[in-house]
Amino acid sequence: MKALVFHGPGQKSWDEVPDPRIQADTDAIVRVDTTTICGTDLHILKGDVPETTPGRILGHEAVGTVEAVGPAVTTVRPDDRVLVSCVSACGRCRFCREGRYGQCLGGGGWILGHLIDGTQAEYVRIPFADTSLYPLPATVDDEAAVMLSDIIPTSYEVGVMNGAVRPGDTVVIVGAGPIGLAAIAAARLFSPGHVVAIDPAASRLDAAKQFGADVVIDPSREDPADRINAMTGDLGADVVIEAVGTPDTFELCTRLVRPGGHVANVGVHGKPATLHLESLWIRDVTITTGLVDTCSTPTLLRLVSAGQLTSAAFVTHRFAFDQMLDAYDVFAHAAETGALKVSIRRQL
Amino acid sequence: MKALVFHGPGQKSWDEVPDPRIQADTDAIVRVDTTTICGTDLHILKGDVPETTPGRILGHEAVGTVEAVGPAVTTVRPDDRVLVSCVSACGRCRFCREGRYGQCLGGGGWILGHLIDGTQAEYVRIPFADTSLYPLPATVDDEAAVMLSDIIPTSYEVGVMNGAVRPGDTVVIVGAGPIGLAAIAAARLFSPGHVVAIDPAASRLDAAKQFGADVVIDPSREDPADRINAMTGDLGADVVIEAVGTPDTFELCTRLVRPGGHVANVGVHGKPATLHLESLWIRDVTITTGLVDTCSTPTLLRLVSAGQLTSAAFVTHRFAFDQMLDAYDVFAHAAETGALKVSIRRQL
Amino acid sequence: MKALVFHGPGQKSWDEVPDPRIQADTDAIVRVDTTTICGTDLHILKGDVPETTPGRILGHEAVGTVEAVGPAVTTVRPDDRVLVSCVSACGRCRFCREGRYGQCLGGGGWILGHLIDGTQAEYVRIPFADTSLYPLPATVDDEAAVMLSDIIPTSYEVGVMNGAVRPGDTVVIVGAGPIGLAAIAAARLFSPGHVVAIDPAASRLDAAKQFGADVVIDPSREDPADRINAMTGDLGADVVIEAVGTPDTFELCTRLVRPGGHVANVGVHGKPATLHLESLWIRDVTITTGLVDTCSTPTLLRLVSAGQLTSAAFVTHRFAFDQMLDAYDVFAHAAETGALKVSIRRQL
Amino acid sequence: MKALVFHGPGQKSWDEVPDPRIQADTDAIVRVDTTTICGTDLHILKGDVPETTPGRILGHEAVGTVEAVGPAVTTVRPDDRVLVSCVSACGRCRFCREGRYGQCLGGGGWILGHLIDGTQAEYVRIPFADTSLYPLPATVDDEAAVMLSDIIPTSYEVGVMNGAVRPGDTVVIVGAGPIGLAAIAAARLFSPGHVVAIDPAASRLDAAKQFGADVVIDPSREDPADRINAMTGDLGADVVIEAVGTPDTFELCTRLVRPGGHVANVGVHGKPATLHLESLWIRDVTITTGLVDTCSTPTLLRLVSAGQLTSAAFVTHRFAFDQMLDAYDVFAHAAETGALKVSIRRQL
Repeated sequence: MKALVFHGPGQKSWDEVPDPRIQADTDAIVRVDTTTICGTDLHILKGDVPETTPGRILGHEAVGTVEAVGPAVTTVRPDDRVLVSCVSACGRCRFCREGRYGQCLGGGGWILGHLIDGTQAEYVRIPFADTSLYPLPATVDDEAAVMLSDIIPTSYEVGVMNGAVRPGDTVVIVGAGPIGLAAIAAARLFSPGHVVAIDPAASRLDAAKQFGADVVIDPSREDPADRINAMTGDLGADVVIEAVGTPDTFELCTRLVRPGGHVANVGVHGKPATLHLESLWIRDVTITTGLVDTCSTPTLLRLVSAGQLTSAAFVTHRFAFDQMLDAYDVFAHAAETGALKVSIRRQL
Repeated sequence: MKALVFHGPGQKSWDEVPDPRIQADTDAIVRVDTTTICGTDLHILKGDVPETTPGRILGHEAVGTVEAVGPAVTTVRPDDRVLVSCVSACGRCRFCREGRYGQCLGGGGWILGHLIDGTQAEYVRIPFADTSLYPLPATVDDEAAVMLSDIIPTSYEVGVMNGAVRPGDTVVIVGAGPIGLAAIAAARLFSPGHVVAIDPAASRLDAAKQFGADVVIDPSREDPADRINAMTGDLGADVVIEAVGTPDTFELCTRLVRPGGHVANVGVHGKPATLHLESLWIRDVTITTGLVDTCSTPTLLRLVSAGQLTSAAFVTHRFAFDQMLDAYDVFAHAAETGALKVSIRRQL
Repeated sequence: MKALVFHGPGQKSWDEVPDPRIQADTDAIVRVDTTTICGTDLHILKGDVPETTPGRILGHEAVGTVEAVGPAVTTVRPDDRVLVSCVSACGRCRFCREGRYGQCLGGGGWILGHLIDGTQAEYVRIPFADTSLYPLPATVDDEAAVMLSDIIPTSYEVGVMNGAVRPGDTVVIVGAGPIGLAAIAAARLFSPGHVVAIDPAASRLDAAKQFGADVVIDPSREDPADRINAMTGDLGADVVIEAVGTPDTFELCTRLVRPGGHVANVGVHGKPATLHLESLWIRDVTITTGLVDTCSTPTLLRLVSAGQLTSAAFVTHRFAFDQMLDAYDVFAHAAETGALKVSIRRQL
Repeated sequence: MKALVFHGPGQKSWDEVPDPRIQADTDAIVRVDTTTICGTDLHILKGDVPETTPGRILGHEAVGTVEAVGPAVTTVRPDDRVLVSCVSACGRCRFCREGRYGQCLGGGGWILGHLIDGTQAEYVRIPFADTSLYPLPATVDDEAAVMLSDIIPTSYEVGVMNGAVRPGDTVVIVGAGPIGLAAIAAARLFSPGHVVAIDPAASRLDAAKQFGADVVIDPSREDPADRINAMTGDLGADVVIEAVGTPDTFELCTRLVRPGGHVANVGVHGKPATLHLESLWIRDVTITTGLVDTCSTPTLLRLVSAGQLTSAAFVTHRFAFDQMLDAYDVFAHAAETGALKVSIRRQL
């Protein structure tokens, strides 16, 4: 089959590789119908993720069709149309039994396109298929569904649920890239009073408005803290979601949150940040971090299916499998291309 | 009356000052029967708390007897024996109505011995008396009760409740000073599997054992992370409580916590800490900070009254009011004197 | 002044009575600008509420203007436009300090138009004014605001919050009278997958659709359990809200709920119901009852103000004060008049 | 092998039957070392559980040694000493993924000794072995461990966790049989202020004191409501746990609970109860029912292992396997024999 193979920092190609095979009784082989690219794939390509070694097929998001299942698989069958979750769950360890699949101790967690071959390929092997694949209703099309592999559960669980958004809240999202936009849409599920997006790029602030932000702030033009204080009687925001992954944006979040409020970190960080405990120790702040568990996937699927949650709107560009390298090119230059998420399909 | 007056950094004396008077309809005047000294009083004396100005009577902990009440006070009367809470609550603002008295927007919060005259005096004026004083049952003596002004609710609310201690947990307390010891005792209320105390002072580790720690670690002799990992199958602690207030101890806490665990900061910090988001972003950690609200005071009073919670055991030294300066001396040199909390009483 | 006075079962009149006066330091006198009638007022008139004695002015809902305040009142002043909450809160007792104002032990709770004179009058005395009145923003008009006295917080707190509605849930509301309709609108704040209304009156099912129900069931035409089972893969509803107050409707709720689901009782009951523990004991069901606390009033006011929550739409008929008896007539015959809530204003 | 076989109402015998065999890839065969008898077994023998058909081997509690495992089992191996949970979990369905194993939709739930052959036998087949067996540390002996099959998790989850016991609470347990005693011990984990046991049998009240009740009430001698009101300033109990299973005891629970309190039903009911909504609708009561999930088993195992929770103390009588019928005799006549739980061991 064909697959997008990582050949070391800066190196990738669309190669002919052997088809995957069932290795364990709990495996399934899925024919990939639609996949996409994540910012994490770009991190791997930069060499930021040393445990991903050359030769690895990338990608952890897909919608596909089950080709074959191991003898212990009971919840999906060949020909089922399924969502591939970015997180695999052994279903047996302590953390899986608490729904904390991202921290799976039994060989799961984020492994696809990271520790084992991934979804940017014609076929992919999915370990622990019973607890890592989700049958899809016909009413949810591939482009809407594939956003449920990673971006929507991540923003919902790590951003909105960890941040404990409640009706009437002032919610600030720092960073209006794809994850930040998904957090805006997910926060709206809880009827906040205001959703504020902060980003220096005008095009992203426009997108933020379309995904549900009612206030947008360009931090190069005005001080976000002044604006949030003016909106909240000088208290600060109830919930602040970090969706960038830099020390500066994290520290901004801790300046914007009100006493008793939440800072939910979603961004992937490569460097430490400064935590201003000399002012925060007394302010009753809760800070959370997290990898997505995808425990919310069934709920989110119901919401997308019921039209309660925007999903397909993230797709700005479409490609066929053999245009995989073009898709990377467009996604990697989002500032110029305006790409949010790209859809890469077996059949365009 | 006589009172301990702050005269600027490094300066204090036991002075004759005017008696306090009712200023607002909701005030009470309390005759102080027993008071104590807090580490925060030492911070003020060092000059670390600029909003506390010379001439201020210090102290925010007391048991006393109501002398007089303003016309709007309904829940306490003259001659009632009461606990003075370290936090005053207007009872009307948004935060008071959520039980978050420490963040009171209506003139309360931590004001005693900070923004208004405090309890290290023969008499003290208590604003918002209905929501800041607690009638005491005769079964709880002064020394047990005065620990409920600050140290016990702080360790319970900001440490144990924020840290979400549950039965069977491995709970680590970093710092075995008075607040850390109180956190050990408070954590025991939830039947953790292990309570681990970390402190470089052997005498404090001995005290930790007496207050309920079953494992003690001197970080100068062994690596706490190695020990905690050995105890927890390399997962880390469920809950880590910071009870020191330095960057190093805070960062240690974030190294000891398991995926999905809680770091509850209780320590008063004067400097920022480094938050290692490059490793923590993916670990599902919850970090909390907070000032005590004293919303748990009625519960804690029931527990002390029922003998469920150690309280009087914190008192290591006893003084009469006119030995106030000696009491400060002993408390300020805890390393040599072994002082935990001192009791300073009208009548010894 | 003029007021609607209860003269014993079946007896009421619009009488000239003495103006109310400040009785306690914490009282306020409010000039009523807009009031309304509640089903509970009809219960009192039927003689179902024996503690309400002849001579009592009825009514517990109003928007008005502060005329005078006692010396201990600090959060409202004369000329402030305010919402009168149906529940008064002493602000000092155990339950008020937990935000459970409906159970106030200090003389509050539901007292207006019940144990003391109420709001269907030109003026009303409000005890504990600081914790029982809410200043209104100019952007919320009287008819929208007066729904926040009782009906909206009741449906939100006792129905939706107690029922723990979450995104994607199937929520069933049994009874589509005013409280049921308010529960439909309030449930929508949490983005349920489906909101199902059950009522035998076609006009109410039409109203239910307008307030946000996507499925309506007339129980005289189809078995609600069959329909809910068909919608939920035979599991049952996640949340069922009882908004009628009869044994039959309550028992229906317990048949419709899924294992692990919630039945939230909002209805006012005059008779016991049968609880089928022989089938429910094993089904992990949570059943809640409650009187409104109005602790959510500030949140709901923000939501109404931000246009997130329908409020004024409940008003179907409008009257001037001197048409009070006509208003009762229309409201008491809702089946014929189609009345949901009536607005009764000083100036029409 | 030998096994206790149900032959229809009132009929049982200790029979020679075929050994169990692996039927599915996820099965294990466990050699039973210690088992016990549950009140539910007596219900089956009375004919109260029609889905249990003649020929069924009874029993759902055991400690044993793994003999063989199917090819898909990964977390236990032959010769592992294991706890058999009374609830089996498929680990894949919606409810299992929420930790609600008692409601398993994938073929689990309470099946042992109910829908499939159980543990009162020399060997037992355990479906879904990876998620239904728990390896035992050597420090927990068989008699302590076998109480973790059912009685301790049931009282902890369905009684104490559902009842939301908190420090300082007044907790009432109605019924001091084995489950009620286990609830007393489990409630103590959260440091309640008082644990009150209500039972008409003096011997059970004595046992209640030994398991941790500090107040005992014989309802034939004094009115429990009077006593609880006297203890709680006429408020009622914070948490009331029903551990009998009759309409009268359930209704007593609803009379004893305070506004805002919890009634947690643990008892197995055969008849409906009357729910006095005419008084309860306004009292903010939460009523829960439930089948045990055994999701707390790992936590409880840690607590028993750490000596934090009494377990072996339930065993009052000991038998060898071939005395199985004697064991039933003693257990079925607990009033005369004083039996709490019996231990039935391969080797006495």
